[in-house]
Amino acid sequence: MSQSAKSLWDKGGSIDALVHRFTVGDDPQCDRRLVHWDCVGSAAHARVLHCAGLLTAEELAALLSGLREIDARAAVDQFEISVGQEDVHTAIEAFLTSYVGEAGQKIHTGRSRNDQIAMAMRLFMRHHVFVRLKDLQAFVQSCVQRALSDGAVPMPGYTHLQPAMPSSMGMWLCAFAEAGMEQVRAGLHVLTQLDCCPLGTGAGFGVPLPLDRSYAAALTGFSRVQRNPIDVQNSRGRYEACFARHAADIGDILEKFAWDLILYSTHEFGFIALPAEMTTGSSIMPQKRNPDALELMRARAARMRSWSREIDDIRGKLPSSYHRDLQLTKAPTLRIADEVADMLRIAARVVEAFEIRHDRLRQAMLPELYATQAAYDLVRQGVPFRQAYRKVAEQIHDGSFHPDTARPSNASTDAGAAWELADNVEAIRGEADSLMRDVDARRDQIAQLETDVLTAPA
Amino acid sequence: MSQSAKSLWDKGGSIDALVHRFTVGDDPQCDRRLVHWDCVGSAAHARVLHCAGLLTAEELAALLSGLREIDARAAVDQFEISVGQEDVHTAIEAFLTSYVGEAGQKIHTGRSRNDQIAMAMRLFMRHHVFVRLKDLQAFVQSCVQRALSDGAVPMPGYTHLQPAMPSSMGMWLCAFAEAGMEQVRAGLHVLTQLDCCPLGTGAGFGVPLPLDRSYAAALTGFSRVQRNPIDVQNSRGRYEACFARHAADIGDILEKFAWDLILYSTHEFGFIALPAEMTTGSSIMPQKRNPDALELMRARAARMRSWSREIDDIRGKLPSSYHRDLQLTKAPTLRIADEVADMLRIAARVVEAFEIRHDRLRQAMLPELYATQAAYDLVRQGVPFRQAYRKVAEQIHDGSFHPDTARPSNASTDAGAAWELADNVEAIRGEADSLMRDVDARRDQIAQLETDVLTAPA
Amino acid sequence: MSQSAKSLWDKGGSIDALVHRFTVGDDPQCDRRLVHWDCVGSAAHARVLHCAGLLTAEELAALLSGLREIDARAAVDQFEISVGQEDVHTAIEAFLTSYVGEAGQKIHTGRSRNDQIAMAMRLFMRHHVFVRLKDLQAFVQSCVQRALSDGAVPMPGYTHLQPAMPSSMGMWLCAFAEAGMEQVRAGLHVLTQLDCCPLGTGAGFGVPLPLDRSYAAALTGFSRVQRNPIDVQNSRGRYEACFARHAADIGDILEKFAWDLILYSTHEFGFIALPAEMTTGSSIMPQKRNPDALELMRARAARMRSWSREIDDIRGKLPSSYHRDLQLTKAPTLRIADEVADMLRIAARVVEAFEIRHDRLRQAMLPELYATQAAYDLVRQGVPFRQAYRKVAEQIHDGSFHPDTARPSNASTDAGAAWELADNVEAIRGEADSLMRDVDARRDQIAQLETDVLTAPA
Amino acid sequence: MSQSAKSLWDKGGSIDALVHRFTVGDDPQCDRRLVHWDCVGSAAHARVLHCAGLLTAEELAALLSGLREIDARAAVDQFEISVGQEDVHTAIEAFLTSYVGEAGQKIHTGRSRNDQIAMAMRLFMRHHVFVRLKDLQAFVQSCVQRALSDGAVPMPGYTHLQPAMPSSMGMWLCAFAEAGMEQVRAGLHVLTQLDCCPLGTGAGFGVPLPLDRSYAAALTGFSRVQRNPIDVQNSRGRYEACFARHAADIGDILEKFAWDLILYSTHEFGFIALPAEMTTGSSIMPQKRNPDALELMRARAARMRSWSREIDDIRGKLPSSYHRDLQLTKAPTLRIADEVADMLRIAARVVEAFEIRHDRLRQAMLPELYATQAAYDLVRQGVPFRQAYRKVAEQIHDGSFHPDTARPSNASTDAGAAWELADNVEAIRGEADSLMRDVDARRDQIAQLETDVLTAPA
Repeated sequence: MSQSAKSLWDKGGSIDALVHRFTVGDDPQCDRRLVHWDCVGSAAHARVLHCAGLLTAEELAALLSGLREIDARAAVDQFEISVGQEDVHTAIEAFLTSYVGEAGQKIHTGRSRNDQIAMAMRLFMRHHVFVRLKDLQAFVQSCVQRALSDGAVPMPGYTHLQPAMPSSMGMWLCAFAEAGMEQVRAGLHVLTQLDCCPLGTGAGFGVPLPLDRSYAAALTGFSRVQRNPIDVQNSRGRYEACFARHAADIGDILEKFAWDLILYSTHEFGFIALPAEMTTGSSIMPQKRNPDALELMRARAARMRSWSREIDDIRGKLPSSYHRDLQLTKAPTLRIADEVADMLRIAARVVEAFEIRHDRLRQAMLPELYATQAAYDLVRQGVPFRQAYRKVAEQIHDGSFHPDTARPSNASTDAGAAWELADNVEAIRGEADSLMRDVDARRDQIAQLETDVLTAPA
Repeated sequence: MSQSAKSLWDKGGSIDALVHRFTVGDDPQCDRRLVHWDCVGSAAHARVLHCAGLLTAEELAALLSGLREIDARAAVDQFEISVGQEDVHTAIEAFLTSYVGEAGQKIHTGRSRNDQIAMAMRLFMRHHVFVRLKDLQAFVQSCVQRALSDGAVPMPGYTHLQPAMPSSMGMWLCAFAEAGMEQVRAGLHVLTQLDCCPLGTGAGFGVPLPLDRSYAAALTGFSRVQRNPIDVQNSRGRYEACFARHAADIGDILEKFAWDLILYSTHEFGFIALPAEMTTGSSIMPQKRNPDALELMRARAARMRSWSREIDDIRGKLPSSYHRDLQLTKAPTLRIADEVADMLRIAARVVEAFEIRHDRLRQAMLPELYATQAAYDLVRQGVPFRQAYRKVAEQIHDGSFHPDTARPSNASTDAGAAWELADNVEAIRGEADSLMRDVDARRDQIAQLETDVLTAPA
Repeated sequence: MSQSAKSLWDKGGSIDALVHRFTVGDDPQCDRRLVHWDCVGSAAHARVLHCAGLLTAEELAALLSGLREIDARAAVDQFEISVGQEDVHTAIEAFLTSYVGEAGQKIHTGRSRNDQIAMAMRLFMRHHVFVRLKDLQAFVQSCVQRALSDGAVPMPGYTHLQPAMPSSMGMWLCAFAEAGMEQVRAGLHVLTQLDCCPLGTGAGFGVPLPLDRSYAAALTGFSRVQRNPIDVQNSRGRYEACFARHAADIGDILEKFAWDLILYSTHEFGFIALPAEMTTGSSIMPQKRNPDALELMRARAARMRSWSREIDDIRGKLPSSYHRDLQLTKAPTLRIADEVADMLRIAARVVEAFEIRHDRLRQAMLPELYATQAAYDLVRQGVPFRQAYRKVAEQIHDGSFHPDTARPSNASTDAGAAWELADNVEAIRGEADSLMRDVDARRDQIAQLETDVLTAPA
Repeated sequence: MSQSAKSLWDKGGSIDALVHRFTVGDDPQCDRRLVHWDCVGSAAHARVLHCAGLLTAEELAALLSGLREIDARAAVDQFEISVGQEDVHTAIEAFLTSYVGEAGQKIHTGRSRNDQIAMAMRLFMRHHVFVRLKDLQAFVQSCVQRALSDGAVPMPGYTHLQPAMPSSMGMWLCAFAEAGMEQVRAGLHVLTQLDCCPLGTGAGFGVPLPLDRSYAAALTGFSRVQRNPIDVQNSRGRYEACFARHAADIGDILEKFAWDLILYSTHEFGFIALPAEMTTGSSIMPQKRNPDALELMRARAARMRSWSREIDDIRGKLPSSYHRDLQLTKAPTLRIADEVADMLRIAARVVEAFEIRHDRLRQAMLPELYATQAAYDLVRQGVPFRQAYRKVAEQIHDGSFHPDTARPSNASTDAGAAWELADNVEAIRGEADSLMRDVDARRDQIAQLETDVLTAPA
């Protein structure tokens, strides 16, 4: 396969080896993740070329069979991208040319690597948003489930890390469930942003061939065409940033979750314990069991914010249209897709597995947590709040404050904590299920199209 | 008004002056921007207290009248927030207490400054998203309008800043229009995220009083209640980041727009000229006319990214619930609201005013821009693309390449550039108008509610 | 003074009002901070012009007297910079022209606002590094002083926030003293970087007049001339970033310090208490005393990192030489100079004032902190460490671990904690004093030159 | 070697597989880079243990031989770190235990992985600063060399990307040489910061054994001991950030250099051309030769800034002492060490290889570049500068401006461009050589110590 080690733009000249290595960078490794998606995009493009009379039915069939072969090899990690080839696009064209002959030399008609990579990345990201939403749903469900079983356990609420008011295990868990739901909605927005097909815009100024761009979009499950060819190139990195920030926003939630658990599992707070198999030890101190996984969840959340900024830093402050800089937006996007998936899965497992230390929580329900409630008791007797506040403050100061700590108190209505908790939890569960049903339906439909475009008869 | 210089938590002790100044920071200045929104939130809260039987009708009426007075004074910049008071919330309670007597001491029943500021910021941000969408629409319309009048002017398309393929003034302008439309859609998503009412969650653990949170939401135009009280505090800065990033994303578009114009107005490119009244001069070089406004647009776009990260850096890596750190998310949020508005207005004006230098553009339409088109001519004759590509490359190399440069060529279909441009422009205009009609309707309805909550009879 | 409202580049044309406001931005406010430094730089420049025969002795004397007048007015906040003037440079030239007549029109000979602002900023930053080092020294001394009085108080050492090994109040305090010392050394490096005079490079390509650049440097206390004129403009923002990062690096230390104190002053840890006058209260919860100042120290540290990145984001990704973008590097530089000063002063005060809760610390010295020590006892008896480690781990597991907790143990040598602490503290104090003596000498010498350049006879 | 798959803290319990994989992360890959440095640090530690009577001479000799064996295997990439082992420290202890028997179980006496990794990273970074300074020197020399041969070629100077004043190829090249020199000085400061030995501080609270820390420092070429054990852990990431920023600061210079060349090699500017073997082509456009390597230099510079911030984001906002988060500071530090080396080498090659297009540069020396010079001619005749400025502005406006463009003019003195250039270039070369002689001497001495500590007789 003599073609395979050459670049698509090779015209016979030489290239400086150091410069070449620098230019190629880690593209061959990165692009291994993109083979499937470039096959899907290429299949759609081939069908469009056939429609436009630029490929015969036989040529189309041959190319589709070649793409299926590549896809199958990639699925078992047997499709190579050499450094000489630089990228997945070159490797695919080279393989097709070798595998199906002259038709392979026609696949690049009416496209550029510029719209091709935009397409592959968009398909990659769309797929991973669906994966992410599934993981996110599982995390939300873990929180809800745990809240249903242990939600009524009382827990101090802190502001400024100082004891503030009565709270509960359920209120704490549902905070993450609700924040998670918000990110489900945000994920749907990311899908909306990604839902436009870049194929057919060439190097960023259109293609003077009668290619049916709507057909390309329909074949690959996009609702609309990304019309403007310049904007397609201007959006390199822009959609990646959108995809990455969503991951980082989920990371922000898990960071808080991890910090809380690290704090609550200190010797001093002691509200919860991690099961031994989720902790690690020290090389020097025999007694240690450390919450490394939680610390790394916190650190990886911070790192996801950094990686999402890396994309912005690379794509930022450039004039319009394509610059090679944009290539470097790929690597952090790929990294972040895996990172958030790992984190959500670990987090869901932690929610299910942490142990509640009831005795320590009971001790922690200090009388001063009930000071606001005591002020409200005075309010109910007609004392203006600001006076009631000062009166309770005086009682605390002179030692005469003896609150009633038995009453349910973490409710936002009089009806009490337990009831409200159940209500909220069911509401969250209902909302999550309803949102995810829509997501699932859409995902299944798109997955089918992605299969069909490669496998349906030419 | 002896109350007015004291903090709400004052219990008679002393405070270190340096520490106090450090703690208060620039809150008094920042909070001047929030007076109106805190009045709106306070009016809703007062109505809820009345419903719960915690305020009489007379007390409610008095408080509403006090809030209207504050709002009126603030509108003419006559409502002061002293350093002793620290913040708008204290200043409002102090004014009410002084203006309407004992009812003023009741306004803080069932709320904390924690949910109060969350409410004020949410109202502020919601309002400014509406303002921003209006400005964004104006920018999109300027691009569309200019494309309609000058879109057919040919222009070279660049990749890697090297001449690539034929493009047009219209294709370039519509790139910004389409990107702008995407940010209209993103703005609608920001509105959806903001569309939940935090009022009634107190310091972050609920309030043990029978407050009707749905009523508060309805009074202020929110579709849903932000249920979980802990999540309300965890979301301090989170919504601000969402609001700020949207501004920064718009900035990214304008940054590219500014960079393009800076480049196109160099002596060397010379495609456009800025009108003299949009340039500035040098203190040393008599000949200079500089595009400072465009450079500052580029720099301010970079700065908006930084400011949006400032919010993330402040709110990040903290355990759950309120920490005073979160207060510092206010200032960059307020700054960014103005910044993006200024930038969009300048950008719209520039789109309308720049001069096209037709002679220079004509000269810039070099023969090599037509190389791809020449390859496609061979493709139409049955030559596989990769062979056609090499053939044209050889012609260029040996000097025999003489393309037909007369034909319209920046179209993504055969039908030609001019027609496609008009079609796209109309499509964009239609889409923009349709989206904005929905936005306008929603904005008007909410603005009415914001007025009513202050002015409707108790 | 009819000149005063005009820009230096005014040639009679009109300027778009919106564009002008956008371009000027907050320069008039920012530049109020720079009046003194621009007077110092202008005085040096005037002396250089006189040397080159471009100003007469009378003109020089007149200009120096004008500059002293400006400086005196600025010292009492009576020197105005109007929006029409745009910046301090214009305001100064306008004032001089009005105050001393034609000589004022000569002051800008051989310079541009480009080298002028580089000079003013460099003087501003140099001054503030000296201020900062003084504040830093005071913080280090507070730590050392407190360590001398309370250093021997035992305290648990944590890794992963889990009890690890015995530590002490002194070891904890000296961690900040040593980190502070490192920043003193870093500050000296910043001074070395700043120690090159940009004056005489004009707009960035030199000035074709016989100006003695070494004389300018000597007059203003710089050891070397920044030779390359293009590099002077390329370094706009580069030195600012260097200055800002040093502040942010100090912030990083204070952030850790604040976090520790927030944690140690929780109800649960309870190792220390803040004096009441350094805490604040809640508007809703009568019992609260919150460590707001420490939380804001943590948040402001994060914000300083952001601001230092803001400078990088603005100056980054630009071609060589001056672009108006660079002007926006001023504001964050000015902000950060004050921020770090405030923080260091608050931190020093906190070090002196926090109360140690000896009872809680004693309780916190848990037996398991001595596990490593127990393993070393076995090592001393010839057991290989890894076996000793496992043996102690087994004892802990089966409940037979009863360590000797009386022995001093936080020492890195056998000689014991108390002695080592005193030794280290004295070593730190000695090092700090020696470093600061050099700093003080250099600062005094430079301050004298800065005075002389304005006041010495022409 | 049954030990080899176990962690050092293994006490027989089980660990969740997903959690374990998440915790280990990419440490095994990262740590391959650190084997040599951990051997050096371990050899020093073993010698210290021997001195303290905790190892016999035979045990020391055995351990040193084991460490040399590991080092030799690692040099040919034959030393494995398994996922079960987690990190290099475990792999080394396991190998030693298997290779030299019981002495292997003693190597961890008196140390923790916490001070061990601090030591390995410090040695790694110190080494790479030396490498970097060598690369930086080569880049500076390339600039100087090219300036000596082509420095007198005239070139327009731009401000705001608009023609400003006459400049030269030499002035432009020397801007990078001088900025490079500044980074040589900054590199020396980084070496000063790194120049303190963390070994002997254990897990961050010292080690109660009589270990001679000064001896450890002397053996490994550090001038001082990092005294405070808590500060050693607090400095995890802090030194890494210092190391990384220095790389990023060099990146900032190369970013500007790359941007300039991208701009100057556009068709429109056309001042320089890249040799064909440093450009790449397009998959669709036959005519293209693109400056990909320069664009990637610009993008990688932006990415280095991001990576250096990644370190800050990970280490920031944590309380004192070790947290597992800090482990993630390793990967970006390792990445950045290679990145900057590649960039400096490419940049040096580009400096040597770019072609100057004399004709285009000549055309670009427009008359208006000489406007300031014309004003100065009037100044020399006694006209105050501001009047001269307005007079020339009028001439330009009314078309009567006809400057003398023959005279050398980019000098900052009257003596002319050519002379000044040569002078500056020699000055830079002298300064660079003198600085590097010191660096080289220090590097050689340290390299010798790093060899000796492994190979000198026990």
